[in-house]
Amino acid sequence: MKNLLLASTSTLHGQEYLEYLLPELKKHFSGCSEILFIPYARPGGISHDEYTSLAAKAFSKAGFQIKGIHEYPNAAQAVAQAEGIFTGGGNTFLLVQQFYAHELLTPLKDAILKGTPYLGTSAGTNIAGLTMKTTNDMPIVYPPSFKTLGFVPFNINPHYLDPDPNSTHKGESRETRIKEFHQFNTHPVIGLREGSWLEVKENNTTLKGQKSARIFEAGKAAYEVEPESLLNDLQ
Amino acid sequence: MKNLLLASTSTLHGQEYLEYLLPELKKHFSGCSEILFIPYARPGGISHDEYTSLAAKAFSKAGFQIKGIHEYPNAAQAVAQAEGIFTGGGNTFLLVQQFYAHELLTPLKDAILKGTPYLGTSAGTNIAGLTMKTTNDMPIVYPPSFKTLGFVPFNINPHYLDPDPNSTHKGESRETRIKEFHQFNTHPVIGLREGSWLEVKENNTTLKGQKSARIFEAGKAAYEVEPESLLNDLQ
Repeated sequence: MKNLLLASTSTLHGQEYLEYLLPELKKHFSGCSEILFIPYARPGGISHDEYTSLAAKAFSKAGFQIKGIHEYPNAAQAVAQAEGIFTGGGNTFLLVQQFYAHELLTPLKDAILKGTPYLGTSAGTNIAGLTMKTTNDMPIVYPPSFKTLGFVPFNINPHYLDPDPNSTHKGESRETRIKEFHQFNTHPVIGLREGSWLEVKENNTTLKGQKSARIFEAGKAAYEVEPESLLNDLQ
Repeated sequence: MKNLLLASTSTLHGQEYLEYLLPELKKHFSGCSEILFIPYARPGGISHDEYTSLAAKAFSKAGFQIKGIHEYPNAAQAVAQAEGIFTGGGNTFLLVQQFYAHELLTPLKDAILKGTPYLGTSAGTNIAGLTMKTTNDMPIVYPPSFKTLGFVPFNINPHYLDPDPNSTHKGESRETRIKEFHQFNTHPVIGLREGSWLEVKENNTTLKGQKSARIFEAGKAAYEVEPESLLNDLQ
């Protein structure tokens, strides 16, 4: 019984951290008193404590307590016993390196399969895909593998950005990068715009939020799917 | 006797491939008749032949012939015997994976140390730094290491982009990403804007082109250096 909420971003422009998601979080984590926070992606190099405080402040508005995984003597056990789990954003390479270092992949998969509600934002969403090969992040550390959790049978590109027709910059657009990904990988990619999230309940995956998402399948032209679309065929 | 030209980009907006660099290339490769092209980064998934044709067309305007490394039975030997070498841009993860697969790192280092003139653009410039950990590219393949050639004693961020003060997008700016790099790595990074290049002659590294470059050193505020600055102290 999977129960996941996979958000493109934690924060919308001009809003507080997690503000736009609070009504969803109340439902998603209903019945939980304390939620385990995984701060390993550490945005901007802040400490695990500082990052956990930020998450705690937001979650308190929805009536939940937060405890950081680094406060437990055994990270794997903390995951196994958690009522609910939230992995925050930051750098995906760092997050994945830490997941391998703490041997968290199997415990987290087990927790998800038994129904522990999970929230990911940005990097925490990226790792729910088959691999982290469609992250936007800089490879500041070398993880032992790019393989991630595979909670969904495709890859996710969070913070998806449309090409800017007025740009004079010659760096690749997001769409170009994902097309390059498909030269070497076959599984689909969902470009998830900021403000969008995926709701995964059992085997149903639904696009949520106000915006359409862009789907990239190997050998096909990219296309848009509208909010409330079921994405169960995407694999 | 190092002799390198490390360009941020191959192409400026509204120009042909390598157009802005042609006067430099004439001087840089003077005395060479044929230049070895390394197309391994394969932008947009084009074939090695197609990419080599693109480079050949540009180089013919400067009076040079181009031959692709994939046309040789032994890539390492081709590097050792080359009169001049050009590594084109594309995806840095792919380029580095291919360099390891073809065991090209040592032959290329040897060629540079004996004075073979080298041109890199974008990914081909990135790999001249100590590691590829400051690439902007998507990790579409998993290389066996992020360690690169170390022709210069720092890292390079090609296609450097200043933060857009009007952006409402919550993805990290380039500056934020490089600051995150310095949470886990100590060596300097040079943010090389499009139209800029580094000229490395023996032990002298000079910023060339019309634009300033942005220097990031661990534990210091980022700062600008002007064209024609010597960067020998950057290590």
